[in-house]
Amino acid sequence: MSSGVTAARGFRAAAVEAGIKAGRTDLALLVSDRPCVASGVFTTNLAKAAPVLVSAQHLMSGSARAVIVNAGCANAATGEQGLADARETVALTAEALGCPVAEVLVCSTGVIGVNLPMAKIRAAIPVALAGLSSEGGNAAARAIMTTDTKPKESSRTVNLGGVQVTIGGMAKGAGMIAPSLAPLNIPLNTPLHATMLAFFTMDATVDRATLDRLLIDAVGPTFNRITVDSDTSTNDTAIVLANGASGAAPITEAGPAYNVLRDAFREICRDLALMMIRDGEGVQRIAEIVVKGARSADDALRIARTIADSPLVKTALHGGDPNWGRILAAAGRAGVDFDIHRVDVYIGDVFVCEGGAARPYDEKAAHEEMLKDPGRLTVDLHAGDVSGSMWMCDLTKSYVEINAHYRT
Amino acid sequence: MSSGVTAARGFRAAAVEAGIKAGRTDLALLVSDRPCVASGVFTTNLAKAAPVLVSAQHLMSGSARAVIVNAGCANAATGEQGLADARETVALTAEALGCPVAEVLVCSTGVIGVNLPMAKIRAAIPVALAGLSSEGGNAAARAIMTTDTKPKESSRTVNLGGVQVTIGGMAKGAGMIAPSLAPLNIPLNTPLHATMLAFFTMDATVDRATLDRLLIDAVGPTFNRITVDSDTSTNDTAIVLANGASGAAPITEAGPAYNVLRDAFREICRDLALMMIRDGEGVQRIAEIVVKGARSADDALRIARTIADSPLVKTALHGGDPNWGRILAAAGRAGVDFDIHRVDVYIGDVFVCEGGAARPYDEKAAHEEMLKDPGRLTVDLHAGDVSGSMWMCDLTKSYVEINAHYRT
Repeated sequence: MSSGVTAARGFRAAAVEAGIKAGRTDLALLVSDRPCVASGVFTTNLAKAAPVLVSAQHLMSGSARAVIVNAGCANAATGEQGLADARETVALTAEALGCPVAEVLVCSTGVIGVNLPMAKIRAAIPVALAGLSSEGGNAAARAIMTTDTKPKESSRTVNLGGVQVTIGGMAKGAGMIAPSLAPLNIPLNTPLHATMLAFFTMDATVDRATLDRLLIDAVGPTFNRITVDSDTSTNDTAIVLANGASGAAPITEAGPAYNVLRDAFREICRDLALMMIRDGEGVQRIAEIVVKGARSADDALRIARTIADSPLVKTALHGGDPNWGRILAAAGRAGVDFDIHRVDVYIGDVFVCEGGAARPYDEKAAHEEMLKDPGRLTVDLHAGDVSGSMWMCDLTKSYVEINAHYRT
Repeated sequence: MSSGVTAARGFRAAAVEAGIKAGRTDLALLVSDRPCVASGVFTTNLAKAAPVLVSAQHLMSGSARAVIVNAGCANAATGEQGLADARETVALTAEALGCPVAEVLVCSTGVIGVNLPMAKIRAAIPVALAGLSSEGGNAAARAIMTTDTKPKESSRTVNLGGVQVTIGGMAKGAGMIAPSLAPLNIPLNTPLHATMLAFFTMDATVDRATLDRLLIDAVGPTFNRITVDSDTSTNDTAIVLANGASGAAPITEAGPAYNVLRDAFREICRDLALMMIRDGEGVQRIAEIVVKGARSADDALRIARTIADSPLVKTALHGGDPNWGRILAAAGRAGVDFDIHRVDVYIGDVFVCEGGAARPYDEKAAHEEMLKDPGRLTVDLHAGDVSGSMWMCDLTKSYVEINAHYRT
């Protein structure tokens, strides 16, 4: 079946056991049968991994043919050797495919500070090339997993002027998840926030500027609105390839087709982002934090993110404890100025805190809302008319288990 | 024995089973036998508990005679009723002591959003009054505990111009610990960062301005530099009472006695702050994060705090895993601008990362350093000449256990 990144026409994928992670596939190759318009967004962490730097550089040309991805080693904090290894990986892939080096992108995920096992990568590339298949999407989605327990794929087909256009995607990410994806070389102090990797393919025809816009519009309200553990990774990357294989008319931001494509793209990103947080390390329950009545989107998101990352709110969610005092306290330390005496808090539909103070409510109903999965926790500041939301997960003993001995 | 808050002359304390927390003492009363010069610093959380607001108001007069403290109920997010309850508590205490209402301070710690059980408080006040003793410091330190496993006390005696002057203190705090104590009505965006309560007494003679300075000088580099879980509380309070009972000459900031007293006060705060993080919820191991070579103190502390609060660094510390990549990644997402390619990282004395990249090191030695308690993790930015440090703790399954069902 053609799922995920091979749902759209003209894309093939392969998965290989390169031997970086024992006993499973750990290298994926994604290739378009023709040149693509390509765009990408990357982590805002200052400690950008070598593959992030190489892919960002290659994307300056605006076109790409292939992406090669390995799990098990992040090739981050690896200095000049890391850059040389990332460059050799793309060069070998380009040579095998017979395309320019700049048309190959590279991503890595895994342990930081360890060099790529290049002998294994060199041996795996021809095997991957030989295994490319238009039904390889699912296998690729499995090969890029680290602590993920499930592969993550989604796709949509839309009708643009009578032509069926398909977008598909795959993603990985379970820990070090608090994406803050942005075009590279953005100013500091953009809202900060794992390794998540996401890859999208579409058979629409779009120019680079439009694809850039589509990617930001799709990623901003989805991947950049989830947090597993507040630890923004060194390797976060989302890449989209558009190969025009549908034969549909070119799409620009001005036309009505843009919105149709953007909505489909955003739905895929939302699907994958929710799969990601649902499969977060040790996660048993997830919830949406909604902040209403803020004066600005920044204010709303800053408060939502502080609540979503609060260890005390995360453990309360785990226990199904409607401990709204922790929600209020997290809002109050978010560094946003608002009148605490106007703040209302809801656990699901149960109104638990009014004007910053306790109000009578049905404790059993609130407990039941807190056990819902997904749950919803709402804070209304009554300070303005802007809303913002984040998806959070609970903090469990399994998270501690998984991360206390990750390398050993 | 006269320990903690009753180490200095002229102070008495008592502990009572008021019945707020079943089966243990839960209300403490601290009284000076004469009026004191008093100062206090409070949480920067916008959701300030009623006792914080009442105590801050009373401290405007600069003098106090007594502090009444309860555990088991924070009297936070309790609206007008909470303020009325805090005011009744101080009024009843003042009446019993025969002093002005404004000379009584009040603190609470425990669950947020629940009203104080005033019938129990009313019944307990006369019992506390009857129980006041110059040997009551340790009992008081036990009565203010919540999830703490041990009482926290410290004291020092210094010689000022031939006169023995004693300072003593007690503190509580185990969860919701990331103090950011400041004089009330400070601007927002001061470094943000449980319920910790700390009380200090001294028999020195000081004026209010000098006592304010002493308190800030003692608390800033100690309590404000620890974090258990990044959740700054609604109730954090540190109060100091100076009653002049030593008969020593008045101390002002200009004289040499100031530094002697300040150093002793700071040592007590450091003792108590380290006891607090050592007794943090579920904590098995603690470490100091040292950031060197920063351009400013704010930069150094922001990076140190981001590392100290990183769930991935905390779990690595728990596992004794010298996973320095997580340290580097946390530094890189702190929102401070620096050159990642100049950053060195040390685990204890083991140099593990040079210029932002892996370097050869003895993995066994690094593992042993990571198991040291306390441990020390150093990041050198090589960007300037300013240093800053934070004390952090590990994240354990016990933390999850304690906080998933705190109220139930």
